[in-house]
Amino acid sequence: MSGTVFFIFGATGDLAKRKLFPAFYSLYREGKLGDNFAVVGLARRPRTNEQFQADVKHSIGEFARYKIDNEENWTSFVQRFEYMSLDINNIENFHQLKKLTDGLDEKYETGGNRLFYLALAPELFGNVSANLREGGLMDTTGWHRLVIEKPFGYDLASAEKLNEQLRQVFEEKDIYRIDHYLGKEMVQNIEFVRFANAFFEPLWNKTYIANIQITLSETVGVEERGGYYDQSGALRDMGQNHMLQMLMMMAMEPPSRLNAEDIRDEKVKVLRSLRLLETVEDVRSNTVRGQYTTGGSNGKPLPAYRQEDSVQPESTTETYFAARVFVDNFRWAGVPFYIRTGKRLPVKTTEVVVEFKNIPDNVYLAKKHDLQPNLLVFRVNPLEGIYMKMNVKKPGSEGVIIPIAMDFCQSCQIGINTPEAYERLLHDAQRGDSTYFTRWDEVALAWQYVDRIAKVWPLSPEDLSMYPAGSWGPERAQEMLAEDGFKWWPVNGQNEGEVDWIAEPKPSVLT
Amino acid sequence: MSGTVFFIFGATGDLAKRKLFPAFYSLYREGKLGDNFAVVGLARRPRTNEQFQADVKHSIGEFARYKIDNEENWTSFVQRFEYMSLDINNIENFHQLKKLTDGLDEKYETGGNRLFYLALAPELFGNVSANLREGGLMDTTGWHRLVIEKPFGYDLASAEKLNEQLRQVFEEKDIYRIDHYLGKEMVQNIEFVRFANAFFEPLWNKTYIANIQITLSETVGVEERGGYYDQSGALRDMGQNHMLQMLMMMAMEPPSRLNAEDIRDEKVKVLRSLRLLETVEDVRSNTVRGQYTTGGSNGKPLPAYRQEDSVQPESTTETYFAARVFVDNFRWAGVPFYIRTGKRLPVKTTEVVVEFKNIPDNVYLAKKHDLQPNLLVFRVNPLEGIYMKMNVKKPGSEGVIIPIAMDFCQSCQIGINTPEAYERLLHDAQRGDSTYFTRWDEVALAWQYVDRIAKVWPLSPEDLSMYPAGSWGPERAQEMLAEDGFKWWPVNGQNEGEVDWIAEPKPSVLT
Repeated sequence: MSGTVFFIFGATGDLAKRKLFPAFYSLYREGKLGDNFAVVGLARRPRTNEQFQADVKHSIGEFARYKIDNEENWTSFVQRFEYMSLDINNIENFHQLKKLTDGLDEKYETGGNRLFYLALAPELFGNVSANLREGGLMDTTGWHRLVIEKPFGYDLASAEKLNEQLRQVFEEKDIYRIDHYLGKEMVQNIEFVRFANAFFEPLWNKTYIANIQITLSETVGVEERGGYYDQSGALRDMGQNHMLQMLMMMAMEPPSRLNAEDIRDEKVKVLRSLRLLETVEDVRSNTVRGQYTTGGSNGKPLPAYRQEDSVQPESTTETYFAARVFVDNFRWAGVPFYIRTGKRLPVKTTEVVVEFKNIPDNVYLAKKHDLQPNLLVFRVNPLEGIYMKMNVKKPGSEGVIIPIAMDFCQSCQIGINTPEAYERLLHDAQRGDSTYFTRWDEVALAWQYVDRIAKVWPLSPEDLSMYPAGSWGPERAQEMLAEDGFKWWPVNGQNEGEVDWIAEPKPSVLT
Repeated sequence: MSGTVFFIFGATGDLAKRKLFPAFYSLYREGKLGDNFAVVGLARRPRTNEQFQADVKHSIGEFARYKIDNEENWTSFVQRFEYMSLDINNIENFHQLKKLTDGLDEKYETGGNRLFYLALAPELFGNVSANLREGGLMDTTGWHRLVIEKPFGYDLASAEKLNEQLRQVFEEKDIYRIDHYLGKEMVQNIEFVRFANAFFEPLWNKTYIANIQITLSETVGVEERGGYYDQSGALRDMGQNHMLQMLMMMAMEPPSRLNAEDIRDEKVKVLRSLRLLETVEDVRSNTVRGQYTTGGSNGKPLPAYRQEDSVQPESTTETYFAARVFVDNFRWAGVPFYIRTGKRLPVKTTEVVVEFKNIPDNVYLAKKHDLQPNLLVFRVNPLEGIYMKMNVKKPGSEGVIIPIAMDFCQSCQIGINTPEAYERLLHDAQRGDSTYFTRWDEVALAWQYVDRIAKVWPLSPEDLSMYPAGSWGPERAQEMLAEDGFKWWPVNGQNEGEVDWIAEPKPSVLT
């Protein structure tokens, strides 16, 4: 593995504390970082190296998968963390940073490789990039990579502007746009399940699949992000990135190879085939938006969105978004992809459900029984695993058919050892594997799709439905599927008749 | 449900004790027998009703799924059991039996319905049937059904003769030939899994299935059945009936309805499409036969077959049989069905494995990885359930692919409450549902297939391979699959690399 100096811009922030420092530690413990690396924490606040290292230790103690249990090992890890107070508009600071970095390059023999992780507000990306170049931080023979967080712009125009600023300093191939859903094990597993199992590929098309449902539900409200969220809303905050990314993984054609560019080429083709919603009527009939009002969960009262901190008291921002999406290509013509995401829903879960077409109504078993269709479910978060729902004879019955769930519960088997998305992505960026990062054309096309919806919404303010916090969102989201003869399948945490979708411990079995 | 007088010929025998009396009790406890029934036990040995009822109680105490826990309920059940000592060649005895039965008909208002269960050696079937008629036992207005056990003949000629004798007294529709494998839950479930799940039918053919493997392995030797077994052998004892029956369930076309005759029509069509083994060379290259020699299991020494009670010391009877079978129709052309059965194998298990064709070798994932094919496994006995083996990304790895098992463990969920095959079949016979009994044309065609093999074997005595008791049988059975590029998949109790095919308790999962 190549040596690297990592720069964390926003090193005193929440992301660094909760995700990045723990990720560094896991990678270090697993030998994935090697010995030739250093981490420079950067933020405005003054901090000594000792204070910073104490922050890192505290963060790892609280959030990391591995416990600190060896003093020598820990010291060797944490001594690589240095802090520098930096004003991102002050070019002088960047010159100082260069000096510091040149020293680290030499000390840890990093070969001049530099990875700049901007855990910052996107408005600052442009200035930081420019100053990295002006400050001389790009003047080494090694590689220089930029890792940035969503949101990448507010719409296509702002995203293009931002991209232009970055491209003046970095090449596209060196820009790693994080969508942390792509770092999740089960999202990555979609491609393996699809392409490493002979029995799925023949069924993976409009002939056998009735619809695909992608749910990303949150129980939280906007927390401290009210100011940002009120500008953004569910469509931009979740729809433009995570939801469309998962849709692409499900819908893409088999790539010619498993290389990053081949996979991203196929994903982009899905976006190009999306049926754009052109008119007010299109948007109205294929999307649902809602906002939570006062409600409750487990007997605990919950405030309305408009009562949250930093939210406008008359805000019309959507906290719930659902859509019927069509991928107009040969494989998927006519198959609806239903996506939904929202805040203050009853359970926190991310799942992708493939509903297969059912047995034809006139076939004898379907005439006698109320047969449920087969489902293949990818459980992404928090439970990780794969479920298949199929019909069998109820034991001991005379031909009573019941649905059962065959499951592979990944988190059951691996428990707390499943790597975090950020661990994975940080490692990939260091290795130069951009498979699970979003390429510019993906970002642009996703905005293009989302912009049309966002543009039309203000024309029909009455379509914003209110839903009580703690409920499953606007009724209209159920109706949209009912129009097609479908329904949202229960996700993890919801019960459904005979099938308990919560994996339960099974009794031991005699052989 | 209709009233019935049940006649158990061979009421002091092993089958009655271990299977039939417990089955009556379960059916009674579940309300499936109603109140209008009586059971007449018949055998040569003199026995009072009280002694007989004590036998029944003892048998149920030892073998039944339900415990006797209510005196009143028990008395009401057991008082219906009467015993009569009978010499099956003495017509006078049958006249007495008629008198007894007429009384029971009246007492229990059975409507003259009579079910004759012959738990006897097949040589006696003809005489018993004739005497039932001569003795006047068929002279009632109700129905008269005959239930008989395997073996149904020794070859086609003897089976035909036997059938003729029965047909002089009973109509084909009233003859219930038991193959108790058809009473097993998971064998019955094959048809529901196949025809109630939209995603299997498109894959259920030569395009997607590489081969089907049916294993019926026993750990026991010949026990007290040496005399019978030495005449019969594995091919006739297991191959002609259970193995071919399971093969038919897997291979049959969807029946037009789920009625007994429709299903049996489809099963017979499979037998008609079997590629007959015509020459010595055919038989030699497509079958394997073996006999166990001394060996051991779990450190316990085991005798050779030729040392078993009532076995000829130079016997060439096979205790192991395997074959490659082809169903020459449009659906299955070229797909081998491998069947194997044997005594003194390492584990007792019955399983049907569907091996799907693998990803083409040249597709990128197959080039980089040693991909295992997808499997669908029906576990019939003793574990009951369905397994699917598929490939996923190993959690936390960088694209390492591992096979995992998704399982529905029926016996895990239902435990000891799964009905016994005999319960099911007795109930079906009483109700007149012949779905899971074998029709004459099935029996005849199965013998036709088996006879050709049996006829040719003596011409090549050197093909009888010896295998140590406690091993997996002759090497040749592995080679036969290897010739086609396949292998026997491990059955329950065998481990296979990463996948532990024994269902294990899973830890509880947080949601």
